[in-house]
Amino acid sequence: MSDQLKIADKTFTSRLFTGTGKFATGEEMFHALQASGSELVTVALRRIDIDGQEDDILKWLKKGNFNLLPNTSGARNAKEAVFAATLAREALGTNWLKLEIHPDPKYLMPDPIETLKAAEELVKAGFVVLPYIHADPVLCKRLEEVGCAAVMPLGSPIGSNKGLRTRDFLEIIIEQSNVPVIVDAGIGAPSQAAEAMELGAAAVLVNTAMAVAGDTKAMGKAFGMAVEAGRMAHLAKLAPVSNAAHASSPLLSFLNDL
Amino acid sequence: MSDQLKIADKTFTSRLFTGTGKFATGEEMFHALQASGSELVTVALRRIDIDGQEDDILKWLKKGNFNLLPNTSGARNAKEAVFAATLAREALGTNWLKLEIHPDPKYLMPDPIETLKAAEELVKAGFVVLPYIHADPVLCKRLEEVGCAAVMPLGSPIGSNKGLRTRDFLEIIIEQSNVPVIVDAGIGAPSQAAEAMELGAAAVLVNTAMAVAGDTKAMGKAFGMAVEAGRMAHLAKLAPVSNAAHASSPLLSFLNDL
Amino acid sequence: MSDQLKIADKTFTSRLFTGTGKFATGEEMFHALQASGSELVTVALRRIDIDGQEDDILKWLKKGNFNLLPNTSGARNAKEAVFAATLAREALGTNWLKLEIHPDPKYLMPDPIETLKAAEELVKAGFVVLPYIHADPVLCKRLEEVGCAAVMPLGSPIGSNKGLRTRDFLEIIIEQSNVPVIVDAGIGAPSQAAEAMELGAAAVLVNTAMAVAGDTKAMGKAFGMAVEAGRMAHLAKLAPVSNAAHASSPLLSFLNDL
Amino acid sequence: MSDQLKIADKTFTSRLFTGTGKFATGEEMFHALQASGSELVTVALRRIDIDGQEDDILKWLKKGNFNLLPNTSGARNAKEAVFAATLAREALGTNWLKLEIHPDPKYLMPDPIETLKAAEELVKAGFVVLPYIHADPVLCKRLEEVGCAAVMPLGSPIGSNKGLRTRDFLEIIIEQSNVPVIVDAGIGAPSQAAEAMELGAAAVLVNTAMAVAGDTKAMGKAFGMAVEAGRMAHLAKLAPVSNAAHASSPLLSFLNDL
Repeated sequence: MSDQLKIADKTFTSRLFTGTGKFATGEEMFHALQASGSELVTVALRRIDIDGQEDDILKWLKKGNFNLLPNTSGARNAKEAVFAATLAREALGTNWLKLEIHPDPKYLMPDPIETLKAAEELVKAGFVVLPYIHADPVLCKRLEEVGCAAVMPLGSPIGSNKGLRTRDFLEIIIEQSNVPVIVDAGIGAPSQAAEAMELGAAAVLVNTAMAVAGDTKAMGKAFGMAVEAGRMAHLAKLAPVSNAAHASSPLLSFLNDL
Repeated sequence: MSDQLKIADKTFTSRLFTGTGKFATGEEMFHALQASGSELVTVALRRIDIDGQEDDILKWLKKGNFNLLPNTSGARNAKEAVFAATLAREALGTNWLKLEIHPDPKYLMPDPIETLKAAEELVKAGFVVLPYIHADPVLCKRLEEVGCAAVMPLGSPIGSNKGLRTRDFLEIIIEQSNVPVIVDAGIGAPSQAAEAMELGAAAVLVNTAMAVAGDTKAMGKAFGMAVEAGRMAHLAKLAPVSNAAHASSPLLSFLNDL
Repeated sequence: MSDQLKIADKTFTSRLFTGTGKFATGEEMFHALQASGSELVTVALRRIDIDGQEDDILKWLKKGNFNLLPNTSGARNAKEAVFAATLAREALGTNWLKLEIHPDPKYLMPDPIETLKAAEELVKAGFVVLPYIHADPVLCKRLEEVGCAAVMPLGSPIGSNKGLRTRDFLEIIIEQSNVPVIVDAGIGAPSQAAEAMELGAAAVLVNTAMAVAGDTKAMGKAFGMAVEAGRMAHLAKLAPVSNAAHASSPLLSFLNDL
Repeated sequence: MSDQLKIADKTFTSRLFTGTGKFATGEEMFHALQASGSELVTVALRRIDIDGQEDDILKWLKKGNFNLLPNTSGARNAKEAVFAATLAREALGTNWLKLEIHPDPKYLMPDPIETLKAAEELVKAGFVVLPYIHADPVLCKRLEEVGCAAVMPLGSPIGSNKGLRTRDFLEIIIEQSNVPVIVDAGIGAPSQAAEAMELGAAAVLVNTAMAVAGDTKAMGKAFGMAVEAGRMAHLAKLAPVSNAAHASSPLLSFLNDL
């Protein structure tokens, strides 16, 4: 099938990217991710084996056929993010990076200024940079211009499960972007993942909604199917929203004749 | 798999019910419905072969393995609906009926009074009645009490593709109903079908959004998958919506230590 | 000023109708209602002095210049509602009636069938009937046809403060109605009252949002102003919603010239 | 009354700020602004009399008792904005400035990077800077930190009249901000202005919705009242949104006794 997603040097069949936080155990995580069909999994730097201590999460991730996407979650500025990125590249042997800079400890909102600064530096240093950012159309263009491989605007606050509260802005971003747009953060249900894909997102990233579901494995599978359904619907072109009902009354003439 | 939907004497694996209106040709309809996996297809009375003239839609429907659900679309009151139902039963050899009564030619809004009246009469006459109605919790209970096999509240005006504008009321209906709740009308995208299933709907009915899509067959398949994903998510229990972000900052202590 | 609301034999300057439930004291209620400018106040039958015992609420209401609108809150069917109405007329000396029938004790959703039945009977008995109902366009037309003086569709479940969740259907009701449409139930903030008025509602009824506010008197005044602002905006015709920004860039040519 | 808004050296009684674009004539604008009660009016640089030619808009503005807030609408980067600001200060004799930088000619979305850069420079140059920006909580904090007198996050795209599509983020911004938060752009109806004030915004800026209304003067007045109502409701504390109806059924026991 030709509908594959290409980012930098990698090609993906699944457009569902996933995170590894908040699962009860590494094993539960592994089965949920496997069921979801995800091929790109983000992992926080602290998971990475620096001191030779094998982390449970990493151990499980290696059992699957996942591409790892280290992230800089917890970094409060560009300097910290660049430092974390360098460590991650060395430890995991990948130059892919999900760039996250959020000085705000309560809502974990991303910092546009530091993110652009770090992105520019990291691209120059040879990283494939996927920045997590606010759904800000101009910022997305600027990140594209400095060489980011994709942009990852948020749907709603991380962990909120509120869905696409930024929908009006995601539409503008998707319309204007020349790099893949991956909706990240806030996706709380498969229907919301499907909605992002219907809008034309290239992919979505899901974590909390899968990790804290009642049945994480079934939820992983549900997200995988929903993303595929949403993508298919986007390609098949949705019917427009209308204010008028269809005025056909097929039975009327029939009944009138009797 | 044990998650089957039972209505009266029939059991369904697919929870996607479909309509036959607005497709460009019978053949296109046939392929879209096949791709969707739908096992219950509603058809307007005028399609039914009364004079021995084989309708194109019906001819194609017979090629598939669909259960037919004749509807009374176009009926303006209980009397017309009962008359149409009787004709349909005879012509199609099924006592299943989607009861639709809409005196309003512009928005095709259902009539609660005439619908209840007709439902009561048709149940007594041995029909398996699935009434199309407003998302009115009390009306749904009353239709259940007179013996309807399911209730079919609307998501938004027919043909509008606006999705679940009645969501707050659908939640109450689903909470209170002892018969399957099938969300009918207004579902304009697979994501919206998934959302209905996530809420706990037993099934959804989709027509316009499939029939007027750019690629009806692919859209049929997308709806089929989305309904399955939404059902799976409902059973797996969704994570709750939250106003606070998760306060984890995995990298912080790590960076602070350096 | 000529923009007055006429219902049956009465004329109103204020389009904010109010309820009397849930206030901490009769005195607090009195001051909030006075501040709101409301001229029509609904009161439950149990408040009505039948045994000669003066209720605190009623005592305070009599100090103001309010028209009283007895309601049948608590009635579970047409028979109970008609009985309550008759008592209320006698006790309060008014044939005006807010008809409420809600068999469901949890969400207090109105019953369309019993409400229509009672409305018809009460109109014949000389009452000025204002029925509280679901935002069901066909039901509204039927209530109009049996002679109701106005219709009172709900915005969202009573006491929920969720605002106009039924907006799509309120628009249809307002478009089709020949009697005043008064949005009742669920209005939780002055902005939502204004929104109803902007849509073309003839009036709104507010209770919970005023009665449980931090400062009930100030909230009463705020609702009064918001209703007036919404009505004014409706008459002044709102600008349409648009997907495109205005493309004017006033400074550009200027800067280009420098 | 003590509820005045203080920004830098100025104090406002009205929390409705207004724009001057899109009115049919300067005279119509004048009457609408007067009716609205607005005390701060933004005006594009091109309106400013540089060559001694009196602009119609400016001529009318001088008839009122408005504070003028020159804006840099049309500037595509910090350099252009700073240049425009300097011209405006000289021409109008005010150091107040609405900073707008939008490189995107289609949606006029603000540029976070250039806006912060220009803001920092302009504050140092003695301007009272009110930046128009995306509803980005971290950016708002940063603008506050460089000394902006207020922040002006957008509600929805300029000229769209879609209202508070950024509501979830405005709530975070308002919670975290130490400077006044003024909701700018996208407010299309008085109800939406009231909603912003209810959330705790310090003020709103309205232009298109007033300028293209059917009756601009009445719409101006309606906005003025709605802003006042929304502010009053915020101070009076709104009742919380609830999923359950109130379970009181006042009539039940009464009827049961009969």
